[in-house]
Amino acid sequence: MKSLVVITLAFITASLHAADPLPSWNDGAAKQAITAFVTKTTTDGSADFVPPAERIATFDNDGTLWGEQPMYFQAFFIFDRIKQLAPTHPEWKDKEPFASVLKGDLKSALAGGERALLEMAMATHAGTTTEEFEKIVSDWANTAKHPKSGKHFTEMVYQPMLEVLAYLRANGFKTFIVSGGGIEFMRPWTEKVYGIPPEQVIGSSIKTKFELRDGKPVLARLPELNFIDDKEGKPVAIQQHIGRRPIIAFGNSDGDFQMLEWTTAGKGPRLALIVHHDDAQREYAYDRGSHIGKLEKGLDEAPQRGWTIISMQNDWKSIYP
Amino acid sequence: MKSLVVITLAFITASLHAADPLPSWNDGAAKQAITAFVTKTTTDGSADFVPPAERIATFDNDGTLWGEQPMYFQAFFIFDRIKQLAPTHPEWKDKEPFASVLKGDLKSALAGGERALLEMAMATHAGTTTEEFEKIVSDWANTAKHPKSGKHFTEMVYQPMLEVLAYLRANGFKTFIVSGGGIEFMRPWTEKVYGIPPEQVIGSSIKTKFELRDGKPVLARLPELNFIDDKEGKPVAIQQHIGRRPIIAFGNSDGDFQMLEWTTAGKGPRLALIVHHDDAQREYAYDRGSHIGKLEKGLDEAPQRGWTIISMQNDWKSIYP
Repeated sequence: MKSLVVITLAFITASLHAADPLPSWNDGAAKQAITAFVTKTTTDGSADFVPPAERIATFDNDGTLWGEQPMYFQAFFIFDRIKQLAPTHPEWKDKEPFASVLKGDLKSALAGGERALLEMAMATHAGTTTEEFEKIVSDWANTAKHPKSGKHFTEMVYQPMLEVLAYLRANGFKTFIVSGGGIEFMRPWTEKVYGIPPEQVIGSSIKTKFELRDGKPVLARLPELNFIDDKEGKPVAIQQHIGRRPIIAFGNSDGDFQMLEWTTAGKGPRLALIVHHDDAQREYAYDRGSHIGKLEKGLDEAPQRGWTIISMQNDWKSIYP
Repeated sequence: MKSLVVITLAFITASLHAADPLPSWNDGAAKQAITAFVTKTTTDGSADFVPPAERIATFDNDGTLWGEQPMYFQAFFIFDRIKQLAPTHPEWKDKEPFASVLKGDLKSALAGGERALLEMAMATHAGTTTEEFEKIVSDWANTAKHPKSGKHFTEMVYQPMLEVLAYLRANGFKTFIVSGGGIEFMRPWTEKVYGIPPEQVIGSSIKTKFELRDGKPVLARLPELNFIDDKEGKPVAIQQHIGRRPIIAFGNSDGDFQMLEWTTAGKGPRLALIVHHDDAQREYAYDRGSHIGKLEKGLDEAPQRGWTIISMQNDWKSIYP
């Protein structure tokens, strides 16, 4: 029976190859790099064949799989949570950065940089159980909308990247998210939106504590940082969660540099790609000077490192589904 | 084509059901509990049907999937490493617990309890890159032998549990290890021995640091504790790594109590089982009074909690493959 499954799967794979697996990609170097890599690593007898168990592909999330402008989508969640929690935190009216958020002055709220954002993240992401938090995120994802596009945030995912995820999985790759965003902020919707189950989502996290409440076990979310999954943290988290070096990595900013560096330093065939936001008309254009998703070192070093730059403007026929 | 695959897989599943999927298990309550649970959660239209994505099964390792007597197998590794590293650590000759290990006096070496073991673990598990450590563990697993049985440690895995792992996977379950043992001590051999890939292995860990050595990125293993995956730590680690509550959990000691408690507190069908080491003749007999794998609370509360006790003596036809 096993051979029938193999033949059937081979036939399906062949059919997928026959139809264009990446219809939203223009023909060009980026699309060619992806399809050539998948073909050579999955063709039996190829010198570059990679056994299915080692076909690990990692994806940054913010700016790689979905948008990140005018600010990280998780920041919208944080601000919405602050407004929601304000009645039980009367002290926030006079305390920055919360006071600015409540006045609707987001620019001032963000003036404190990463430190202020982290403080707000702690205040809004802790204090619940894991189950309660999952429901809060799900409800938010189902209702909140992006101020400029009017779309749900989960609709602002990149169609060409959804095709890459599906194409890789159809070819036996396991797809993982490795994001600086909150791990429990992503998990409630990644399976539906990207086809990526919670156990393949890696992100930043706060600590949790197992305790009994009325005899029932819960995991309480604590206002204490556990791990920041960014820059040097990404290879560390990849080892911790996956225990195997990816052979493909997609990123978009210098926060992904070390993930791409770690991925391509392994033996055998390796593929690293950077989504370059150069499409001011259909999305946003930003790189070296951006306060979010800054891309400088990656742009400078990609050519000599053999990393592929994806031009949203030239390589992608469409942006959103 | 998809329907053909489904039919084919259904046929294979049916064939597996027809042949006994657990041939090393005697007919009895434990075997019945496992097969009845799998049948009801995987039968389309069953009131207890669980979608494949939610079929998460977690397994303790020491004492549940492989042996743990006369001491944790990882302790043998630690002692072998101390002897191996001794030439570069002349100070160990006069420093406990290392001095006792080098004299072959393991009882004195272990007299310092968990703290001494942790100190020895740090000294022997850090100071290498992740790649170097993987090779060290692999080499050890391929050569080291159990003092009593003379078998390789990786041969001292329980045949009935190997059958459970395969049976669950054939029915769409994802199998995870959730062990107090070192995560990187297990990963080099779990895929070959249990069919469990590194990304499905959860364990205790030390911290690692990303750095460049001669321009090449490495993850350096630091003598600093990251996480102890035992007792209350198990549900915490399950959430961190899997992000979903298991529906099946297997353990053998009170170190697994919270994992079983967390698993069975979820909604819908749940199954928790405890391997009881009551077979002095073919393996070891120990529970309440044991210094390793102590099982007291689990034995006391299993009946009222609906957890299944597996008697090695009565439920298992054979122990090792």
